[in-house]
Amino acid sequence: MAHALRLARQGLYSTHPNPRVGCVIVRDGQLLGEGWHVRAGEPHAEVHALRQAGEAARGATAYVTLEPCSHFGRTPPCAEALVGAGLARVVAATLDPNPLVAGRGMQRLAEAGIEVRVGVLEEQARALNAGFIKRMESGLPWVRVKLAMSLDGRTAMASGESQWITGPRARAEVQRLRARSSAVLSGADTLLADGARLTVRGAELGLDAQRTALAMGRPPLRVLVDGRLRVPLDAPFFQAGPTLVATAQAGDVDAYRAVGSELLVVTGEGGHVDLPALLRELAARGVNELLVEAGPRLAGAFAAQGLVDEYRLFVAAKFLGSSARPLLELPLERMSEARELRIEDIRRIGDDWQIIARPASRS
Amino acid sequence: MAHALRLARQGLYSTHPNPRVGCVIVRDGQLLGEGWHVRAGEPHAEVHALRQAGEAARGATAYVTLEPCSHFGRTPPCAEALVGAGLARVVAATLDPNPLVAGRGMQRLAEAGIEVRVGVLEEQARALNAGFIKRMESGLPWVRVKLAMSLDGRTAMASGESQWITGPRARAEVQRLRARSSAVLSGADTLLADGARLTVRGAELGLDAQRTALAMGRPPLRVLVDGRLRVPLDAPFFQAGPTLVATAQAGDVDAYRAVGSELLVVTGEGGHVDLPALLRELAARGVNELLVEAGPRLAGAFAAQGLVDEYRLFVAAKFLGSSARPLLELPLERMSEARELRIEDIRRIGDDWQIIARPASRS
Repeated sequence: MAHALRLARQGLYSTHPNPRVGCVIVRDGQLLGEGWHVRAGEPHAEVHALRQAGEAARGATAYVTLEPCSHFGRTPPCAEALVGAGLARVVAATLDPNPLVAGRGMQRLAEAGIEVRVGVLEEQARALNAGFIKRMESGLPWVRVKLAMSLDGRTAMASGESQWITGPRARAEVQRLRARSSAVLSGADTLLADGARLTVRGAELGLDAQRTALAMGRPPLRVLVDGRLRVPLDAPFFQAGPTLVATAQAGDVDAYRAVGSELLVVTGEGGHVDLPALLRELAARGVNELLVEAGPRLAGAFAAQGLVDEYRLFVAAKFLGSSARPLLELPLERMSEARELRIEDIRRIGDDWQIIARPASRS
Repeated sequence: MAHALRLARQGLYSTHPNPRVGCVIVRDGQLLGEGWHVRAGEPHAEVHALRQAGEAARGATAYVTLEPCSHFGRTPPCAEALVGAGLARVVAATLDPNPLVAGRGMQRLAEAGIEVRVGVLEEQARALNAGFIKRMESGLPWVRVKLAMSLDGRTAMASGESQWITGPRARAEVQRLRARSSAVLSGADTLLADGARLTVRGAELGLDAQRTALAMGRPPLRVLVDGRLRVPLDAPFFQAGPTLVATAQAGDVDAYRAVGSELLVVTGEGGHVDLPALLRELAARGVNELLVEAGPRLAGAFAAQGLVDEYRLFVAAKFLGSSARPLLELPLERMSEARELRIEDIRRIGDDWQIIARPASRS
């Protein structure tokens, strides 16, 4: 299963909106076939592995990182293919949360007389597809908020001066976070301040040629939250390809369409963009993982509304001082309102450090 | 030498104002004697090791973590003792920076026909006595600033509410930092806000009985920076034993003396306490390591004046939000003024994390 998970991870940058899945077929300790799902519309991991194993699959064991599908999607159901190939045993790391599957794949296998087991390296398997699972289970994407800060928790000087807080290794990691995401989201403040484009730049990914090609072949949807439509249509953001603009007021839909952008009106309280509604809309469009790369105001709004699943804090070893801008606009009065987090990992990344933290109340 | 360093570390809490030193005497791979300096006025590490080795020391090799002393202090010079015992070879991790020694110990040994070597595990040996070395070389103590903060770099709510940001394991580590320091320093803001006493509490050290006894037998000097003498003499701080109060204005020396406190007037610019002058005075009193446990204002003043050698940041996995108090009162305008740091270590400590960082320009 560990090998199947390694295979599944090959699809980190390309399977959207599908989950990343790997499969190996083994008999008497011998690897007969392996495969991973590359991109939507193409064969699932099981099909690749079965093709490679051929007739040898009969009586063998298949290890698959996600329950085989039982429904006709863009490809025929994998459960049927496994039955047809005469597998003796199928081990799945975790059930498919897709309501169209949700146990029915394993059930179909068991009914065909195949020995089945679920729950091997399940935690790792679920972590790899946290976005897909959350979307299937709750109709919302996995929201990952990336912030670059100094050791004293500041993101920019009061003047707005901020570029290059962190070094090239940290920026490459951010590029990889963009590339694995279904969508990348920012706000008007950020785009107006630094002309961000939010694109994935292949040369900066630091990946091998194959993975770079997979990533560049499936660029994330770029989303702008611009409640008052302040970002002009000649901004670099719009010049870099199709985008989705979420706003709180009516705008010139045709003008946006002319630059390849779709205007989505989702008005919430106080005339702000309704972030939960936007997230539901993104999930409905197949967004598994959403990367929020925004300033303290918009990132703070996600935090204040409890919409964040994961923080990626890139910490530069410097102090920006007490008049610099905060990490998040999140005014709290009392200690009891403090947002409890769970630090999952702290690791050095070039001259900087990356902290992965999650709200403590979330599982 | 690694074993000698382990021995030297036994004196972490007790050798002030002396350095921590360990010594082993070895011949043909056999350990003949070992010792470490326990406290000032008592025998040096070499003497303990020589006593244990006895006659067997003749022709053996001594490993000592600091150059043997060549002068009469409170005890006779160790170099003479090593010569007298007939050692064949003496290996020192590093030279003694004390101007009364500074190479003369090794020179005396070499003149007596002993084979000498300096510079084995030197970096570790110097790190163990960074305070002693800095005091000898510059006439200033090693200034270690401890701060407890949230992941967004905040130390307290705007109201001042702050107690227990970090957990018991982090607080025990702070107790050990106090216990190893020659002196612990705080400011009037902190003492007025939370009635801090800055004492070492044996039960909270988390050390074995021997080390706890050593630590409790040599409590650090407690220093208060109180420029305008705002902390009343009935404050818990003054009830907990003798203290030193640094102020910028004349005060009632006798009243302070009556509560066991010494008043030191060191007036600097703007009517503030002259921190560099205070540090020189502390070094003159034998302070090797100074632990600063102060609020954002006083800690910020140390930072702004470039007086900090080491930051110990205890980070709690929570956000206190953007209206909470900053890590340091350190207003900077431009990115170019940012204080560059070098992160030496990040480690988990209970539910919290400890970051050890040093100003990047310092060696």
